[in-house]
Amino acid sequence: MSVSLRVESTLEALLARAQGDLTPPRLAESVRYAVFPGGARVRPSLCLAVAEACGDDQPAVANAAAAAVELLHCASLVHDDLPCFDDADSRRGKPSVHRVFSEPLAVLAGDAMIVLAFEVLAQGCAAAPDRLAPLIRTLAAGVGMPTGIVAGQAWESEPTVNVESYHQSKTGALFVAATRMGALAAGASPVPWSRLGEKLGAAYQAADDLMDAVSEPEEGGKPTGRDVALNRPNLVAELGVQGAYRRLQELVGEAVEAIPDCDGAQGLRDIVRGQALRLTPKQLSRSAA
Amino acid sequence: MSVSLRVESTLEALLARAQGDLTPPRLAESVRYAVFPGGARVRPSLCLAVAEACGDDQPAVANAAAAAVELLHCASLVHDDLPCFDDADSRRGKPSVHRVFSEPLAVLAGDAMIVLAFEVLAQGCAAAPDRLAPLIRTLAAGVGMPTGIVAGQAWESEPTVNVESYHQSKTGALFVAATRMGALAAGASPVPWSRLGEKLGAAYQAADDLMDAVSEPEEGGKPTGRDVALNRPNLVAELGVQGAYRRLQELVGEAVEAIPDCDGAQGLRDIVRGQALRLTPKQLSRSAA
Repeated sequence: MSVSLRVESTLEALLARAQGDLTPPRLAESVRYAVFPGGARVRPSLCLAVAEACGDDQPAVANAAAAAVELLHCASLVHDDLPCFDDADSRRGKPSVHRVFSEPLAVLAGDAMIVLAFEVLAQGCAAAPDRLAPLIRTLAAGVGMPTGIVAGQAWESEPTVNVESYHQSKTGALFVAATRMGALAAGASPVPWSRLGEKLGAAYQAADDLMDAVSEPEEGGKPTGRDVALNRPNLVAELGVQGAYRRLQELVGEAVEAIPDCDGAQGLRDIVRGQALRLTPKQLSRSAA
Repeated sequence: MSVSLRVESTLEALLARAQGDLTPPRLAESVRYAVFPGGARVRPSLCLAVAEACGDDQPAVANAAAAAVELLHCASLVHDDLPCFDDADSRRGKPSVHRVFSEPLAVLAGDAMIVLAFEVLAQGCAAAPDRLAPLIRTLAAGVGMPTGIVAGQAWESEPTVNVESYHQSKTGALFVAATRMGALAAGASPVPWSRLGEKLGAAYQAADDLMDAVSEPEEGGKPTGRDVALNRPNLVAELGVQGAYRRLQELVGEAVEAIPDCDGAQGLRDIVRGQALRLTPKQLSRSAA
């Protein structure tokens, strides 16, 4: 089964199981709306690709890890789009959750997805219970305090912020969790996989900054120009469009080099290069070609 | 060590460990503000009292369970107070988190506390790893979909709602999690402890409805009259003040009877009766005395 099919079928099965008849219908709908249809599923695909590169001896554990990472990513998008943060009308090319379902349901859907992510890990590790605690600790490190994505978002409420540490927390932390959890889910050491997550997270953030600065709204599926409007730390503001584009290319190269020597290394390199191309705004990849 | 001292020292130690120098300072402050000083710490005290009644053979696990329950309770208060829900200016007798720190930080502090609750369980179960998965599943059941406190709050966004199932989710679910997790943390079966959690949760909700209807704001530490203002299902609206007060007394009696036969039963009965008295608005307990 392809990695992306594994991601979708895992998420489908878990939402069907988690919701059932007793869930308040609009909460169930808003969670489903936040998860499907997905974006590129970059983080869970990366998690599964790393698990496969490490032997994937417990596919149910790897599926749970990938789903947990994606649920937390979706939760962060729903909360980041709220009026008190980005006040975004659209996400993934459709109206944002709070615009469709209300602000209370957007807060609650995000909360429910955070809880579900940890629940999924507990369920998925039934056949390998010794992997549960390290997976939870790794996911929490990617999401919570002191340097997970929640902390990254919180830097926007501080009077001063270092751009690099802000981006490392806000975007990089969940990529690092994704690669490390892929290894842990397969019973391997997470240590050699951190650097790949760091570099990909930084590349993804550079691509996001470029997309925000130069693309049309239709291309990214969300409003553009928000970073400038919100005076948010941004690589394009720091390096200019061409500088940020060069930095993106460097980071992709470093990510490819960071892939440890293993059976699935070539497949992983292809995935990383493919993601990098997909994430580059079309007008830049065209002018560079 | 008394149960309440155990709760406070556990929460102190875990926040000190979780935050560190790298946490954005205002996020760290807002989480601390949401957790300290606490309210009555009813849920974690109940969790520890049940663990003690079950032998408490792994105190670190019980401490983690109690802390996780309280963190999720505090997170739910911070999110429930947001402008899009109760829009509450005060909580526990001081300004609410979003009034002091901003709405973005209130959302993020709640998110960070949810994540921390699961992380704490993973850390606390190091010496009894087989207890981790059932503790996580039980906590998630008390908090998430389909019938945890997040689902309970989400019923307020539905066109029709059954008062009893609404209250069972919104308040009862975390009490049930507290008693069941106390048993699980001590390696005992959670099954005999569900009923105590259910009855106490219902009693607590009845007391909260009475407090909202008849007390002065200073007594409860939060605004009163909100249920009527928000047209929220409420036992006083359904049964009147005297009817709701009789129901509270019945529920406390049923909670006391629901305590399983065990070494610590008498101590638990005293705790339940003490909490019930503390929760009853003074003007009602005076007139009944």
